Amino acid sequence: MSVDQVSTPSRVAEPDEGITLEELALASRNHAMPLEAMRYDVTPPGLHYVLTHYDIPMLDPATWRLTVRGLVDRPISVDLETLKAMPRHTSRVTLECAGNGRAHLTPRPVSQPWLTGAVGTADWTGVRLVDLLEDAGIARGAVDVVFSGADHGLDRGTEDDYRRALGVADATSEEILVAYEMNGQPLPPQHGFPVRLVVPGWYGMAHVKWLCDIEVVDHAFEGFQNAVAYRIKRNAEDADDPGTPVTRIEPRALLVPPGFPDFMSRTRVVRPGTHLLEGRAWSGWGVVRRVEVSTDDGHTWVDADLEPAPDRHAWQRFTCPWEATDGQHYLRVRAHDASGRVQGDEPAWTTGGFANNADEAVRVVVMEEPPR
Amino acid sequence: MSVDQVSTPSRVAEPDEGITLEELALASRNHAMPLEAMRYDVTPPGLHYVLTHYDIPMLDPATWRLTVRGLVDRPISVDLETLKAMPRHTSRVTLECAGNGRAHLTPRPVSQPWLTGAVGTADWTGVRLVDLLEDAGIARGAVDVVFSGADHGLDRGTEDDYRRALGVADATSEEILVAYEMNGQPLPPQHGFPVRLVVPGWYGMAHVKWLCDIEVVDHAFEGFQNAVAYRIKRNAEDADDPGTPVTRIEPRALLVPPGFPDFMSRTRVVRPGTHLLEGRAWSGWGVVRRVEVSTDDGHTWVDADLEPAPDRHAWQRFTCPWEATDGQHYLRVRAHDASGRVQGDEPAWTTGGFANNADEAVRVVVMEEPPR
Repeated sequence: MSVDQVSTPSRVAEPDEGITLEELALASRNHAMPLEAMRYDVTPPGLHYVLTHYDIPMLDPATWRLTVRGLVDRPISVDLETLKAMPRHTSRVTLECAGNGRAHLTPRPVSQPWLTGAVGTADWTGVRLVDLLEDAGIARGAVDVVFSGADHGLDRGTEDDYRRALGVADATSEEILVAYEMNGQPLPPQHGFPVRLVVPGWYGMAHVKWLCDIEVVDHAFEGFQNAVAYRIKRNAEDADDPGTPVTRIEPRALLVPPGFPDFMSRTRVVRPGTHLLEGRAWSGWGVVRRVEVSTDDGHTWVDADLEPAPDRHAWQRFTCPWEATDGQHYLRVRAHDASGRVQGDEPAWTTGGFANNADEAVRVVVMEEPPR
Repeated sequence: MSVDQVSTPSRVAEPDEGITLEELALASRNHAMPLEAMRYDVTPPGLHYVLTHYDIPMLDPATWRLTVRGLVDRPISVDLETLKAMPRHTSRVTLECAGNGRAHLTPRPVSQPWLTGAVGTADWTGVRLVDLLEDAGIARGAVDVVFSGADHGLDRGTEDDYRRALGVADATSEEILVAYEMNGQPLPPQHGFPVRLVVPGWYGMAHVKWLCDIEVVDHAFEGFQNAVAYRIKRNAEDADDPGTPVTRIEPRALLVPPGFPDFMSRTRVVRPGTHLLEGRAWSGWGVVRRVEVSTDDGHTWVDADLEPAPDRHAWQRFTCPWEATDGQHYLRVRAHDASGRVQGDEPAWTTGGFANNADEAVRVVVMEEPPR
């Protein structure tokens, strides 16, 4: 057997092609955050979104080691206890998958078919990456820092461990954590046990899970996840376009779905009267400065009451009163961040389905309570 | 607006109709257990399958009460502290959704589109339901015991809280727990915080989450989840067939997928040589007595080494050595239980897609390691 018979090139779905069994298999093992969980400041265990490229590896914390090597003065190999004895830092960080919103695109890039729930917020605790890098001493000529996870697999014909690099300037930010706790507990297996990278403000692909090795190199890393997979390309016809790298999280606001759902359609049902709409907004490019709410499918907008961020990279709560009248309504919200970015109403199509932060309509039907 | 415009009847998919966006929305919020998690005796938090009919309610444990009322001598209303002061019991229980395997059916009933991972095993701790019922004193003439959760929604035109009943004989089994801990921790929100029912051996629909009320009644309960939703019906054309109730878990064995995956196809890649296949098997009708393994798509079978159950209703581990040779192979496993039930290779079609425990082929490609 050759690799080509197992692992095929990327493609976009045919017009009117429903979600395939392969996409469903990914949607079944990975999972979004049910949007009602945005009621919590910190996402409870098991509700935070999860995306695993290959399998979840089962690592033994007693034998796990993290190495720091390559273009460094003093190569390091630390065990978990040694890591935990280093200065400890905690940050509240909102993490979102770069593919969030992919399944709303036309045509649909065939991959993990996220709707809009691939997000979550956790308190991550660990050591600062920069402390480890300073212990090792980055040598002259360093260009990239390559992070390797213990997960291994095939993707579009390339067999590799999961590996991602950051440039030296990004990698030495004081914000980045080598984390061993999530919400005050050891990392769950699916979030990288025993240790993962947390790169606040960046999409999830940068937060390497099951972290085992950090290598400083003297060139731009050309591994699959950096050079092929996570690239913004607008033109599917141009095979030679290298695209640009996927990096920070675009602004997004989402509502806690009001009322209660219909099981199958997830249409929301609300009683007539005054409701306090609530939701969360975030951006990796700057704090959110303004959230607008429309209860008439985008014809008119009002500003929501926006709370400040509890941490630089944590989502912000917003609320907005709504007088719900009988009938069908489409609710929309959109975030503006400090960098000047704002959500639009049209998806920005890319070949990989990345960074689609178009605002989305929530269908709500206002109905009286049925007679009992 | 009328309910009919929001909540439509059940249907089966058209031939060649891909998974719909509505099914995908369910598959994104609910999630299966990634099958590599069968390596763990007890499923770690966040990996156990989850199915929520409506929304996950956010309950305040300080004000939560459980009432036991109806045809009882001494109605009860207990808070969480009182419940925790009662005699405490822990059971290891494998829980499976009745719809596991639904998306493999042809035609496909349109609902939560499970493949085969809607399963998990946890240590549940709480009080025995029978202790509560004895405190209340079941009166003469009792027929059913109705359990109500705090989750509320619409399904096929019916608006209701999630409610399920057990007959008095089933409900007074010493095995049933009113559980407030999962794996030694308070229940996560999505598993029923603060309190849920655990009915060992039964499919998940019986294990009412966010339990608030228990009512003993003098008649067969005719609520939606018992009388309409969870029924075994073989003939979609016969609208008058009431069907039979979905109750206990049919036997099933599943493999930990060997080797490593291709991201998109989830095809397994294995190196040539000797591998120890492993998996888990369970049944709600009796312990598993035998697991067979086929490495040639069901042409020939050998018996796996089967471990005893650690608890009457917990899955059992099995292993089987395999000499993997170059090329493509389809692996199958099937369980036999103490009741004489055995998995077949053809799905038993039902209108709701329940209890499909047909064995499934796992595609494995055996390839040498690529040159580096």
